[in-house]
Amino acid sequence: MSVASDLRAIVTAGVVVDDPDVLGSYSHDDAEWAPYGRPAALVRAATTADVAAVVTYCAEHGVPVVPRGAGTGLSGGANALAGCVVVSLDGMTAVKEINASERLAVCEPGVIGDDLRAAAGDHGLWYPPDPASAPWSTIGGNVATGAGGVCCVKYGVTLDYVLELEVVTGTGAVVRLGRRTAKGVAGYDLRALMVGSEGTLGIVTEITVKLLPARAPERTIAGYFDTVVDAGRAVAAVADAGLVPSALELVDKECLAAVDKWKNMGLSVDADVVLLGRIDTPGSEGDDEAERMRRAFESGGATFAVVSADQQEADALFAARRLAYPALERLGPVLTEDVVVPKAKVPEMLASIQAAAARHDTHIANIAHAGDGNLHPLLITPVGDEAARTRAQAAFDDIIAAALELGGTVTGEHGVGLLKRDGLRRELGPDVLAMQQAVRRALDPHGIMNPGKVFHA
Amino acid sequence: MSVASDLRAIVTAGVVVDDPDVLGSYSHDDAEWAPYGRPAALVRAATTADVAAVVTYCAEHGVPVVPRGAGTGLSGGANALAGCVVVSLDGMTAVKEINASERLAVCEPGVIGDDLRAAAGDHGLWYPPDPASAPWSTIGGNVATGAGGVCCVKYGVTLDYVLELEVVTGTGAVVRLGRRTAKGVAGYDLRALMVGSEGTLGIVTEITVKLLPARAPERTIAGYFDTVVDAGRAVAAVADAGLVPSALELVDKECLAAVDKWKNMGLSVDADVVLLGRIDTPGSEGDDEAERMRRAFESGGATFAVVSADQQEADALFAARRLAYPALERLGPVLTEDVVVPKAKVPEMLASIQAAAARHDTHIANIAHAGDGNLHPLLITPVGDEAARTRAQAAFDDIIAAALELGGTVTGEHGVGLLKRDGLRRELGPDVLAMQQAVRRALDPHGIMNPGKVFHA
Repeated sequence: MSVASDLRAIVTAGVVVDDPDVLGSYSHDDAEWAPYGRPAALVRAATTADVAAVVTYCAEHGVPVVPRGAGTGLSGGANALAGCVVVSLDGMTAVKEINASERLAVCEPGVIGDDLRAAAGDHGLWYPPDPASAPWSTIGGNVATGAGGVCCVKYGVTLDYVLELEVVTGTGAVVRLGRRTAKGVAGYDLRALMVGSEGTLGIVTEITVKLLPARAPERTIAGYFDTVVDAGRAVAAVADAGLVPSALELVDKECLAAVDKWKNMGLSVDADVVLLGRIDTPGSEGDDEAERMRRAFESGGATFAVVSADQQEADALFAARRLAYPALERLGPVLTEDVVVPKAKVPEMLASIQAAAARHDTHIANIAHAGDGNLHPLLITPVGDEAARTRAQAAFDDIIAAALELGGTVTGEHGVGLLKRDGLRRELGPDVLAMQQAVRRALDPHGIMNPGKVFHA
Repeated sequence: MSVASDLRAIVTAGVVVDDPDVLGSYSHDDAEWAPYGRPAALVRAATTADVAAVVTYCAEHGVPVVPRGAGTGLSGGANALAGCVVVSLDGMTAVKEINASERLAVCEPGVIGDDLRAAAGDHGLWYPPDPASAPWSTIGGNVATGAGGVCCVKYGVTLDYVLELEVVTGTGAVVRLGRRTAKGVAGYDLRALMVGSEGTLGIVTEITVKLLPARAPERTIAGYFDTVVDAGRAVAAVADAGLVPSALELVDKECLAAVDKWKNMGLSVDADVVLLGRIDTPGSEGDDEAERMRRAFESGGATFAVVSADQQEADALFAARRLAYPALERLGPVLTEDVVVPKAKVPEMLASIQAAAARHDTHIANIAHAGDGNLHPLLITPVGDEAARTRAQAAFDDIIAAALELGGTVTGEHGVGLLKRDGLRRELGPDVLAMQQAVRRALDPHGIMNPGKVFHA
């Protein structure tokens, strides 16, 4: 009997797939050059019971389980291992509850971020975390990686919104972690442990998130800069002004040009770098803050800075920022970085990225959640150019080393997956790594949960 | 050789105490009726190295270690075990850094909450978590219990502000968990696991917290109600109005009277229950929100509701709320509850508390972080009245059962300690309890870290 036929006997009819083409398309995420193997089977789970049955079977037979959502990850966390069972949650798409009086939503892991946001919006509520992938990525995947986004600079990341999780554990048990109440400290925070664990401690099958009331319309402040370092100075000036922006994004000319070429949005700007700030404080107080942000941009060296009077133009700039990654991908394979440094080190980190680009003759465009110090240099290589690929990987390693040198982290929101395992080891050091692995063994006693991800096997 | 003399050889001179009177005063926290034993020694640690040396010694010799801060806990988490070493962090009181550009503070665990808040305030910054004990309790203790407070309804709890921890692990290693950057998902979130772990997974020796810019002055809205159930309805009306108050506290007449009797604050109010709301949205927007909260109080059945024009009067009401617990303690032993229920269940929970008081002939006063659904019924017994104590414990158990029945939790911010262990077991169920204990064994392999707390030994 094959694994696929074994599984067919224990899960919902029709969810086990062994068609080679389909298996192929479910074998990896969006991480450039991260290795992946051929799965024994794919289960497009329909229910929590399907997931529990698969994990129980795999625990008994020592078969690795690799969970995945939409496969938009950028670190290889969802890449298949040879002979594994891929459990895809992309078919579990029910928004089960929007509770306005408790300000929470309950959904299945396959719900797309923007769909959850729309469902909350229908009740005058708002789900803040907004990764650039929000139109395509799933809430389950966002939980697995601890996704961030544009508004995190004011509103925090996925962890800050997860109240309760239903999880299939490494032994196939179905448990609930966290709680629906606004507060609670009963026992260790296994909910927080699960968020960002990339499928190595369990598979999330239901998510309860906190919602906020819909907020006031945002004002957009745009600033043009001659250098990334000037833009970095402006970011520091915003913090020093005591402002809490609801977005503070950096996009370089290259990204804007790539989006414009693709979408024809009329984005040509006369600057090397653009900062896009937003303020959502309501009323005249918000007007004042927007003007203070504009002045902070100027004090950082902006050649032009304006509070946008044109909502359509402002939205186009943010849409362009969101489309930067897919637009650049059209030009060739893109290796995406995700380092975070202390905010004051942003100019220095941006300079290091430029130096790495020059040193390794690698084409690097930049987008960044600048207000969080979270930089996404995008390393672009011509299709099929092996030498360029080798140089890009050397630049990638240099960027990680520079971030650690500046007191930063190797991943702010994309996760460790396969691509950041070495960086993680350097960042944590041996004692913390040992604690992490002890926790992993405690919760995945059979060693079947996405093995080889986050840590080397 | 005694444990005390062994320890004297390995820690800072003068920090090991075996004077029986001092040992006695360091043997328990503020939890009424929680058992405690006689420690072998007390170490009032001066440095992280002291803590590491003690844990290493205790791991070798199988001696239990009980860490503590100011001893203001209400669940017995800091109570000594017979023959243990109590490690007090109350002497490590340095605020090491206030970093305005990164908006963070670094402090030792013995720093008092209000002292950290004052130090941040000197830089135009603010540390939000504000348990009622903030004038006396330590940041280390707040981290160990996952403390909350009055402003949590808008600003979140201790976990939401902890960026990085230095921790002495169960094997005596000194590690750093979390990071100073605004974001980061490198590896499992052991920082979050440590927060609220009540000294059972390690001892926190340095804390880096996120700070916010100082906020606008708050407006206070007071509402008088004839019944707790009416007040509960008003709390729901505030949420339904889409408001996010910066405080929403419930205090009953009894608490106000006890404080007034003690402090002579002129608080006599013509109501059984008072709701105290605050709004810190700046500008005219904030004025509007305050008026909307006032109307929500009225719609819930307030006999009187007003936006306070008198800041002194408003501050006196909040001061009274903060002093309620010590004021009631003057009347006799007080057993404090800390349940949280879904916000819509607050009226029902308050009714259950009244029923438990009647059923067990127990005197129960009420304070509550009503906006979070976090209720603190205070069970007061006459000094030395054993029968009353037995009845109070039966009422305590009934309140826990009612909270669980309503989908709530047994502790919102005080921790499990000794008093909530049975409740925890009922709340989590066997599978999650097994996961929690597996994590504990993974990180405390010698079983010496505050054993018997949180879970039964």
